[in-house]
Amino acid sequence: MSDGSMTSRTHPLDSFFAPSSIAIIGASRDALKIPGLLLTFLRRNGFPGWIYPVNPNYPNIDGLACYPSVADIKQPIDLAIVIIPARVVLDALKECAAVGVKNAIIISSGFAEEGGDSAAMQDAIADLARTSGMRISGPNAEGFYNELGQVAATFSPTVDVKPDAPRLLATQRRIGIVAQSGGIGFAIYNRARALGIALSYVVSAGNEADLGAGAFFDYMVRDASTDVILLFLEGIRDTETFLAAAERAAESGKPVIVVKVGRSGAGGRAAASHTASMAGWSAAYDAVFAKYGFIVSNDLDEAVAIAAVLTASPPPKGDRVAVVTVSGGGGIWGADVVSSQGLQVPELSPPTQAAIRDMIPSYGSPRNPIDITAQAVHSGGLQKTIELLAQGDEVDAILVVLSLSNETRIPFKIDELKPLIDARRKPILFYTYTLPSHFARTELAKAGVVVLSGLSHVGVAMRRAVERAKFRLSAPAVDAAIKRIDLTRHLVGDKLSEHDSKRLLASVGVSVPNEILVSHRDQLHEAIARVGLPLAMKIQSADIPHKSEVGGVRLSIATERDAAQAFDDLLARASAQRPEATLQGVLLTPMAKRGVEIIVGTMQDATFGPMIMVGFGGVTTELFKDVIYRPAPVGVEEAVTMLNELKAAPLLHGFRGAPKADVGALTTLIAQISQLAAWHRDEIAEIEINPVLVYPVGDGTTIVDALVVPVVKEKI
Amino acid sequence: MSDGSMTSRTHPLDSFFAPSSIAIIGASRDALKIPGLLLTFLRRNGFPGWIYPVNPNYPNIDGLACYPSVADIKQPIDLAIVIIPARVVLDALKECAAVGVKNAIIISSGFAEEGGDSAAMQDAIADLARTSGMRISGPNAEGFYNELGQVAATFSPTVDVKPDAPRLLATQRRIGIVAQSGGIGFAIYNRARALGIALSYVVSAGNEADLGAGAFFDYMVRDASTDVILLFLEGIRDTETFLAAAERAAESGKPVIVVKVGRSGAGGRAAASHTASMAGWSAAYDAVFAKYGFIVSNDLDEAVAIAAVLTASPPPKGDRVAVVTVSGGGGIWGADVVSSQGLQVPELSPPTQAAIRDMIPSYGSPRNPIDITAQAVHSGGLQKTIELLAQGDEVDAILVVLSLSNETRIPFKIDELKPLIDARRKPILFYTYTLPSHFARTELAKAGVVVLSGLSHVGVAMRRAVERAKFRLSAPAVDAAIKRIDLTRHLVGDKLSEHDSKRLLASVGVSVPNEILVSHRDQLHEAIARVGLPLAMKIQSADIPHKSEVGGVRLSIATERDAAQAFDDLLARASAQRPEATLQGVLLTPMAKRGVEIIVGTMQDATFGPMIMVGFGGVTTELFKDVIYRPAPVGVEEAVTMLNELKAAPLLHGFRGAPKADVGALTTLIAQISQLAAWHRDEIAEIEINPVLVYPVGDGTTIVDALVVPVVKEKI
Repeated sequence: MSDGSMTSRTHPLDSFFAPSSIAIIGASRDALKIPGLLLTFLRRNGFPGWIYPVNPNYPNIDGLACYPSVADIKQPIDLAIVIIPARVVLDALKECAAVGVKNAIIISSGFAEEGGDSAAMQDAIADLARTSGMRISGPNAEGFYNELGQVAATFSPTVDVKPDAPRLLATQRRIGIVAQSGGIGFAIYNRARALGIALSYVVSAGNEADLGAGAFFDYMVRDASTDVILLFLEGIRDTETFLAAAERAAESGKPVIVVKVGRSGAGGRAAASHTASMAGWSAAYDAVFAKYGFIVSNDLDEAVAIAAVLTASPPPKGDRVAVVTVSGGGGIWGADVVSSQGLQVPELSPPTQAAIRDMIPSYGSPRNPIDITAQAVHSGGLQKTIELLAQGDEVDAILVVLSLSNETRIPFKIDELKPLIDARRKPILFYTYTLPSHFARTELAKAGVVVLSGLSHVGVAMRRAVERAKFRLSAPAVDAAIKRIDLTRHLVGDKLSEHDSKRLLASVGVSVPNEILVSHRDQLHEAIARVGLPLAMKIQSADIPHKSEVGGVRLSIATERDAAQAFDDLLARASAQRPEATLQGVLLTPMAKRGVEIIVGTMQDATFGPMIMVGFGGVTTELFKDVIYRPAPVGVEEAVTMLNELKAAPLLHGFRGAPKADVGALTTLIAQISQLAAWHRDEIAEIEINPVLVYPVGDGTTIVDALVVPVVKEKI
Repeated sequence: MSDGSMTSRTHPLDSFFAPSSIAIIGASRDALKIPGLLLTFLRRNGFPGWIYPVNPNYPNIDGLACYPSVADIKQPIDLAIVIIPARVVLDALKECAAVGVKNAIIISSGFAEEGGDSAAMQDAIADLARTSGMRISGPNAEGFYNELGQVAATFSPTVDVKPDAPRLLATQRRIGIVAQSGGIGFAIYNRARALGIALSYVVSAGNEADLGAGAFFDYMVRDASTDVILLFLEGIRDTETFLAAAERAAESGKPVIVVKVGRSGAGGRAAASHTASMAGWSAAYDAVFAKYGFIVSNDLDEAVAIAAVLTASPPPKGDRVAVVTVSGGGGIWGADVVSSQGLQVPELSPPTQAAIRDMIPSYGSPRNPIDITAQAVHSGGLQKTIELLAQGDEVDAILVVLSLSNETRIPFKIDELKPLIDARRKPILFYTYTLPSHFARTELAKAGVVVLSGLSHVGVAMRRAVERAKFRLSAPAVDAAIKRIDLTRHLVGDKLSEHDSKRLLASVGVSVPNEILVSHRDQLHEAIARVGLPLAMKIQSADIPHKSEVGGVRLSIATERDAAQAFDDLLARASAQRPEATLQGVLLTPMAKRGVEIIVGTMQDATFGPMIMVGFGGVTTELFKDVIYRPAPVGVEEAVTMLNELKAAPLLHGFRGAPKADVGALTTLIAQISQLAAWHRDEIAEIEINPVLVYPVGDGTTIVDALVVPVVKEKI
């Protein structure tokens, strides 16, 4: 399925993932410990290249010549696997670099994750990679496994193949796994393998002194043998490489499933110490994932089930699902699970129901879910019903719910089922409510079927496949959205008042209300005449970002006399409550009509830079966390997607008889604000438009309040 | 753990679940078909009683004498298993009843699920049970399995034990499974068995002509050998028995896990045809489950994981969890999953961290999650760390995250681990990220450990265990909440106006505002004087339930002149827009102060009767479905629980500096309305209080609008 034109034929990491020769520095005769396991697994998996054990204590290991040092090998070495104490790793790597070793994996632990001197050692390793050109993975890595190339450059017991256990292979398409935890990366492989999902590579990233998850991800994106990518991330370090690979994956249509951990306080705390990474801010990660259409999962089996569906099935053309079952209860459950994911389980047409009715006993049901009963399995009704649904146009996917626990029989003939699966008309998924037998898995694998065993996971995987099939990378932000000007004169000091913030917005072309700042009482009359009554009055001070906390806002002022009174009151109150604040004056602004309240904001993420956020105000944001983020900038198209992802989105689309809101104006504003944050990321730390009122279509928006927070310059 | 005092020593269904003698009506020599399997499984599982095959075609089957009819057996028969064509089932049952057979299970299909004559046959079976006293399960049942009594009265292949496969048993405590789908019920058993969870009974209910899920549930609740109950429900038929058993379970502290299917449109459609049951309204089921502290699950493996935790572990005393791992990534993930369920993963005290630090390598982490590293497994640090946490008082549960895929080794010594598990100080759960080996499961079972393999399921199970440990059955509703009076004079016609609804509420003692209905313009002056200005005016007609749709509400009327104008307008508009409506007049009511808006409602569920609902108004109800139901009546205590279950509950408790709301007054109102709906279930179909405004503590509530819908009497 991979598009050759999108994938290069050579990649700098080819010699890493498919080495012709491997040196094991620290090789051992003890086959039970890690150094020994590395050699054992390499050979047991049939590595076709040269293996050079390095250890001054042995003349040979297990029939292979063993070398005192890497310099003694005197042959080209594509990959060195380093498993020696941390304190001697750097010297060994220098020796590798000196003799032209192309790549190294440091298995040894005890570097940056410990802090102190160990961290300095890791920095030295990074420097060595930069200066020598030798690419280095780890330290604290668990290596990789290249299934097609038979390169088991890892001590993970999951690659410890038994001669009598043939590889279960159900899928043609292959997954590539990149994990910042070796234990979890190989566990994903372990579980995917048990389902019969084919593998290209699984690679663990470790501490990423040089090669990071982004670099490995890039390799998988460009690799023609990898059809689906599965990422396990704690925190990205090589951000630019990662983002470029993400964009390439999205453009080429290669699906990416991602598990991001370190989302909780405790998890983040541990991620910081574990691989010495920062777990970062989950919302920013999710925003990046959403932009590129990554499929986010927080469960191992769920992630693997999604991988199973994406490798074994064609993309669904829509969201209509038929549930076919031999158990009434199982069928109902299947229909519930599919429906709970927002997919349709439509009733079938009368002719289709009639055709199915003819194939099943009278106590079955030809509706959807379709209960063909256990009896119809024997009469061939199961196969025929699936065929009918696969060939017809009434559903976009089929979920077969049945029991596959029998050790000697399956309810299909492989030579009948295989052509149906091979035709790839639509996803046909098989869920067993009993635990599947090894026999059933093995037999059905021959037809290209992955037997799934977690019902909720199947439901999620179907939804994700439908969403993924619909995903299109949004058009890039259009530069013309705002004026690109020097903002220096606006960004004075380390905070801005509402008025100064709005003047900044106006200077780049964002529409703000007709407002007047009044600093002296004698300007009030003219200002009122220009703004008009009724109006709102707000105290202005860069030192008072939350005006309502000091009673600094007066609404619906209807007379000039009230305005004068309010002016005096606002200044007096602010002076009394915040004597240290520098007051600019009072802002006069027309009373805004009622509209849909929206919050638009930007902030800077340590990993990914400027982010744009949108949500509805009040409880939907505060209690229901109904806000959506994206990396800034976004174009209007992506802003529309953001709005539609909000649970409260119906409020914009004519909720309960209200007029439809001016989404066009709102998305233009979102695009503008995001562009402003992106272009001026070195000067603007945060923007908060809270609220902007959105009026009916054609009536635009009004920014009621705005706050721009400059980046605080380091004092020299 | 079962309390002998709560469980009776004899139960009418003892002879059903533990029969001394079984007749198989329709027994066969064909060991591959269902009739033959029944005999095979009974014998293979070691049934210790008498077995009487009945089939006029054979003199004997497999060494057992075979009888032409049940009447020819001439011995007491506790249980007849009937597996003959549907059309001859009734006659066979009559014969059974005639010779005093105590119980029967009808395996045969083709009854009510087909409709028509078949349904009539099922009714006849129900009548036979009633008149004869013989208890009948099915038709369309899959029978049951009694593990302790070795009674495999089922054809489910899941009881097909192999002589060379010893039963994996990790738990002392046993689960009892009641399922309205045989396929799913035995699949739950199949999966629980694979984890080493002990079983008391698994029983399938089928079409429930006589014995229903409620009756079987009641048996499990009273049964001393059942410690945890797992229900799979499509729709309850024997509602009273079910509810009585639910209350008994809640009182005795026996946990109940429930899967309820038929929640979706398609699922409900299928449930209706499958076992001829009505799936009913899910919200009502969930309300009943919540009342009795049932643990709801919508996933098979999740339900089984919850059962594993409840059988293998003591109840947690709190929500503080330690995550102990050998994989940094796994520990972070574990901490994330636990945190995402709302449980705490607290940092450990410095002394505890120091003690752990001494047991692990320098590159491990003694914080929480605790990464002891793979190396510390070998040095005993894993066992010692768990011991330290189990004996200390810093956490309430321990989650061990590790790899248990090795076929020959586990990272524990059983004689060290077993005493720790047996001590039952707190839950100690074991999750493996790789697939567990049979060896690891078997070895750890010896220590009483169930190896869990689904990470999200573990997180959910831990939360559920914490919630369950805190659950207390709420005090019953207090009858004194409202006056018990005859409402006949209020409930005239088939709909009530707001004013008549409020007068009904007032008549039973519910506080309503000081309002006056004005039907003639000349009453207006006096009414205004009594109500006071400003006031609100609302058109009143039983035919106009939604007043705002006809512009029938005027707010903030400040002068008598405006009131007079509004009076004329309201009547004119209503007459123009709803010429057919009978107008009562205009209701004058004081303008309510602003408060927290709440909706309280009641409605009737077909299965469970009156339900009480509470939610916040607006988007929280409409878009976020943030409403809570309970069976009516509820007392004040349960009303408090309902409010706290709302996601927007913080709005009542001083959100963003607002004063705390008068929850006492609100819960009194909820209790009153629920009692009204419960007492008058035959007369009142629905009550809707929308909104009631809740004021700061001490200031009570104001019912702004109310609607009572009478039960429509059948016309004679």
